[in-house]
Amino acid sequence: MRAVRVTGYHQPLQMADVPKPVPSGPHDVVVRIGGAGVCRTDLHVLEGQWAEKSQVALPYTIGHENAGWVDAVGSAVTNVAVGDKVILHPLLTCGLCRACRAGDDVHCENSQFPGIDTDGGYAEHLLTSARSCVKIDDSLEPADVAALADAGLTAYHAAAKAAARLRAGDRCVVIGAGGLGHIGIQVMHAISPAELIVIDRNPDAVKLALEIGADHAVVADGTHVDQVRELTGGHGAEVVIDFVGEGGSTKEGLAMTRRAGDYLVVGYGENVDVPTIDLISAEINIIGNLVGSYNDLVELMALAAQQKVRLHTARYALDDFQSAIDDLDGGRVRGRAILVP
Amino acid sequence: MRAVRVTGYHQPLQMADVPKPVPSGPHDVVVRIGGAGVCRTDLHVLEGQWAEKSQVALPYTIGHENAGWVDAVGSAVTNVAVGDKVILHPLLTCGLCRACRAGDDVHCENSQFPGIDTDGGYAEHLLTSARSCVKIDDSLEPADVAALADAGLTAYHAAAKAAARLRAGDRCVVIGAGGLGHIGIQVMHAISPAELIVIDRNPDAVKLALEIGADHAVVADGTHVDQVRELTGGHGAEVVIDFVGEGGSTKEGLAMTRRAGDYLVVGYGENVDVPTIDLISAEINIIGNLVGSYNDLVELMALAAQQKVRLHTARYALDDFQSAIDDLDGGRVRGRAILVP
Amino acid sequence: MRAVRVTGYHQPLQMADVPKPVPSGPHDVVVRIGGAGVCRTDLHVLEGQWAEKSQVALPYTIGHENAGWVDAVGSAVTNVAVGDKVILHPLLTCGLCRACRAGDDVHCENSQFPGIDTDGGYAEHLLTSARSCVKIDDSLEPADVAALADAGLTAYHAAAKAAARLRAGDRCVVIGAGGLGHIGIQVMHAISPAELIVIDRNPDAVKLALEIGADHAVVADGTHVDQVRELTGGHGAEVVIDFVGEGGSTKEGLAMTRRAGDYLVVGYGENVDVPTIDLISAEINIIGNLVGSYNDLVELMALAAQQKVRLHTARYALDDFQSAIDDLDGGRVRGRAILVP
Amino acid sequence: MRAVRVTGYHQPLQMADVPKPVPSGPHDVVVRIGGAGVCRTDLHVLEGQWAEKSQVALPYTIGHENAGWVDAVGSAVTNVAVGDKVILHPLLTCGLCRACRAGDDVHCENSQFPGIDTDGGYAEHLLTSARSCVKIDDSLEPADVAALADAGLTAYHAAAKAAARLRAGDRCVVIGAGGLGHIGIQVMHAISPAELIVIDRNPDAVKLALEIGADHAVVADGTHVDQVRELTGGHGAEVVIDFVGEGGSTKEGLAMTRRAGDYLVVGYGENVDVPTIDLISAEINIIGNLVGSYNDLVELMALAAQQKVRLHTARYALDDFQSAIDDLDGGRVRGRAILVP
Repeated sequence: MRAVRVTGYHQPLQMADVPKPVPSGPHDVVVRIGGAGVCRTDLHVLEGQWAEKSQVALPYTIGHENAGWVDAVGSAVTNVAVGDKVILHPLLTCGLCRACRAGDDVHCENSQFPGIDTDGGYAEHLLTSARSCVKIDDSLEPADVAALADAGLTAYHAAAKAAARLRAGDRCVVIGAGGLGHIGIQVMHAISPAELIVIDRNPDAVKLALEIGADHAVVADGTHVDQVRELTGGHGAEVVIDFVGEGGSTKEGLAMTRRAGDYLVVGYGENVDVPTIDLISAEINIIGNLVGSYNDLVELMALAAQQKVRLHTARYALDDFQSAIDDLDGGRVRGRAILVP
Repeated sequence: MRAVRVTGYHQPLQMADVPKPVPSGPHDVVVRIGGAGVCRTDLHVLEGQWAEKSQVALPYTIGHENAGWVDAVGSAVTNVAVGDKVILHPLLTCGLCRACRAGDDVHCENSQFPGIDTDGGYAEHLLTSARSCVKIDDSLEPADVAALADAGLTAYHAAAKAAARLRAGDRCVVIGAGGLGHIGIQVMHAISPAELIVIDRNPDAVKLALEIGADHAVVADGTHVDQVRELTGGHGAEVVIDFVGEGGSTKEGLAMTRRAGDYLVVGYGENVDVPTIDLISAEINIIGNLVGSYNDLVELMALAAQQKVRLHTARYALDDFQSAIDDLDGGRVRGRAILVP
Repeated sequence: MRAVRVTGYHQPLQMADVPKPVPSGPHDVVVRIGGAGVCRTDLHVLEGQWAEKSQVALPYTIGHENAGWVDAVGSAVTNVAVGDKVILHPLLTCGLCRACRAGDDVHCENSQFPGIDTDGGYAEHLLTSARSCVKIDDSLEPADVAALADAGLTAYHAAAKAAARLRAGDRCVVIGAGGLGHIGIQVMHAISPAELIVIDRNPDAVKLALEIGADHAVVADGTHVDQVRELTGGHGAEVVIDFVGEGGSTKEGLAMTRRAGDYLVVGYGENVDVPTIDLISAEINIIGNLVGSYNDLVELMALAAQQKVRLHTARYALDDFQSAIDDLDGGRVRGRAILVP
Repeated sequence: MRAVRVTGYHQPLQMADVPKPVPSGPHDVVVRIGGAGVCRTDLHVLEGQWAEKSQVALPYTIGHENAGWVDAVGSAVTNVAVGDKVILHPLLTCGLCRACRAGDDVHCENSQFPGIDTDGGYAEHLLTSARSCVKIDDSLEPADVAALADAGLTAYHAAAKAAARLRAGDRCVVIGAGGLGHIGIQVMHAISPAELIVIDRNPDAVKLALEIGADHAVVADGTHVDQVRELTGGHGAEVVIDFVGEGGSTKEGLAMTRRAGDYLVVGYGENVDVPTIDLISAEINIIGNLVGSYNDLVELMALAAQQKVRLHTARYALDDFQSAIDDLDGGRVRGRAILVP
């Protein structure tokens, strides 16, 4: 089958002909790819940023946001059957460690990450596990939801954590209405009654935010922290979700967090650098966020099936992988680029 | 001032001229009534059903769902000022017992209940406490929200408890789309992503439910439990909220509750009578529900200001109190009857 | 190998020679039994009480409280190795359904129950799954902890649920200081600061309760509900855990539950029969309890290793199974009877 | 009456004769001081560190950790009576703002802080509010518990937050076994089954920690982070409570926090300075901690009455206030210095 592979860092991806995977283990599942998201992380992989951490042996197939149809299953697979439409949780987890046994897949002590440390989904077929397969509604198409598998799942996870403490009349600030923020806003709107205040540098992103669920939108023009404090009666918001994590957003995020409030870090880049006395005197929490669990993905797919979360996508044929990469790198993709075999 | 009073049980209410209250204690607040809800409980008061429990001395002024404008305040009142539009929490609480100190006003060990055990709001003015006053948004009118003070607050409290455990893709069954259910449906729709299945005997109520937030509506025709089990994949719902509590609804409610689910009792009348083995083998919880806290009422008013919760009301002049009572008793009130002085 | 089997209901168990199990599936684990608890449920199995529910085909090997040493493992087992000392979670769970993915093993949609619906542990070896194996501390012996696998795990699960809401100064009533209660008291003492009030009909059990963690012990002599209300300032306790569930304990349990409190049903037999108005006016919750999760069992084993939970056991050779059954049936077992192959 | 007053910054405290306070407001309470804790914060007050923040007018009476006997009460006081033994919550709160109505006294929008911004307890009598009075058990003496009012309450609050997520088998690291840590260790031991690992630079403090509840004690000698990681199987602890907050403890604290764990900041001084990528990839939370609520103080007093939390105190006559201050400043106080009028 065709697969797009990393053959060396700082080199272009290569299309190759590789054997189609077959289930060997009892929980193995082979998925025919319907869509594979092209993500900024893929650019970082090519730049070698993940090489040391992943220890992946080259060449391997890239692509960590995958959806498609079940093509073959191992002997012990009971949750999906051949022909089922599925989206794949980004991790392959052991199911046996304490984290897995608590439903906290992301902290599995023995996980693999297809597309990063093992073969991924820029291909016609992908070998995965029954534990990673989430069935999706008949109304959804793999290519339309694939990009929710990782970026969307991260946004969902943070939003669900935030929603757990937000009550009617509370405020939630979302910093960044780009890829993740775009999903986060839709999710917050669907699952929480909190007033949503969205901040972005891009006036168009801010305008779009108002269409998909934001109650207030603020352009980050230097007065935005003051604007938010004004919108929140001078107190700041009960929750701030920072999908940016760089360029000063952490300091601003903390400055917009109300006493006893939560500041959720999702985007990354800079350091959080804050006096302990400030954390203590306002009794603020800084909450780290990683990608969501398997059940989080099930819930996100429920929202997608209810048409509460939608994603704008630009489809590319698998053979046109280089165009997709180039367009992403050049800032020419609106929404998410998806490879369709 | 004019006040409508209970002068004897099984006797008509009487309009009387009584002294206008003035603040004597430091937290006293006198409210000019803008609207007083006429509630089925008022009929029960007149029938003497509350006489023993309340130990109220006759005559006294009835009416426990009140909203209006602050008319005078005691020396220590800091949360409201003369002229503020307010809705009143139904209880006068001490603020000093452990329950009050935990924000759990309803379990105050020293509370009073105006309209039930002390003078209420079928009057031009009402004496209350700063602790009972919730400021409402400029966009809201006292007469429009008064009935949310007790019935609405009870529905909100149960819905908020339910929402705390419901995730996207979960199901919530609401039994009864009448007075409380009507509010409960709107609240659940506003604060939770769960799929809402509403059951009522009245086909019109069921139809209305679909307009205000229900995803599925089921007429209680004897097949409804089976219909709900089918709508929930044979499992039952994660949460069932029973606003009826009689006529077999408790047994049906439990039968529609999924393993590890919650059955919330709000309406009352019959006994919950269930084998312990059933509670244990399915690990089901039966959750009691009373009226909400002060902060619950603040939150409900936030939803009202956001136009996410609305109430249909029929206004009566205070002098026409007997018509309001008669119409309620005769089933001729659509929504809630409100007395306006 | 030797195995004690049910060959017919209302007939004595039979020792038989059956093939030693071998791992066939990748997650299969064969355990050499070190101890198998003899439980009252086993008597009920023999009486046919479980026949319809379990649909088990006779003959089969009984015994659902098992611990021992790992003897052989399937190809995909990573959490235990040959020679490890293990206690077995009572259920074989799928690991793939939504409940399993939330760590809620007990509500697995595809579980098996060795000793009840498939071969159990009154035998030299038992076939189980990696998902059921909990490694135990070097300091613990399988025969000493086996009875914690089911009865103990149920008590732990209820106690842990209760502890989650109990604060210093709160009270917890435990009804029944027998098998489960005995564990529950030790667990509550270890994990919660709440004052423990234990009730039992048996003065000796009550005395023992004081030695293992109870702060107050009350003989159930007809005045016990009043005694508890007095011990709790007339309010009742924040939590009541009922390990009895029959003989009037449910009504008494609810009568000892404070406003806004939780009544946990663990033992079963009678109906909970309570007016809805009582649940509502005191806003009480009735909480069902089943056996604990895999992680619950890990935690219980941590308490056992810390010597915070101990069990009195009477050991019988596997060949003496009939004596163990007879002694249990005749009330001659102090603590728990354990079969040791 | 006699009162010890701040008459100028960088000047010694002065004993003065001032009028004994009397209740003027309805919730006023006058307390005859039985003990007033001498705290390091008092030294900071004298150095003027609080001058700008508190805006207190000089002269005023210092002392913010107070306990004694109720001497006189206002007209609306129902929770205490003349003669009651009480400890005083450090804040005077309004009882009317949203935080107060949620039981979250510490975030009251209108609070006063006796001893800091209004007259405190280095005196024969103190004017306080019914909302600040916590009755203590007959077995407790005001002078013995006074120092729990602020320092102890802060430690309790952090420990209770930590305990809410700790399960049997989990680990909790306590950094700092000094004033607050000393209480925190006793509280954790009383309310949580988690294994307690205590770190301090002082070998004597570490030894004492083992006597009052620590399971492991580690001298901070440069190898301590490695020692803790070894004690936790290489993973770090589920919770780290940092009572130090300076000298590198924040970085070390985060390094000892397990994936998905909580790092609680209680002590302060340095900045938390951590890459966002570290917070995200390990999904760690940084939890700010301030002093506890009124109900927290009630709970701490329950533990004190149960003799689960004890404090070593050195008593000084009120007239010897300067010796107490000097001894504290000179490091000559073991435990806490208490002024007794």
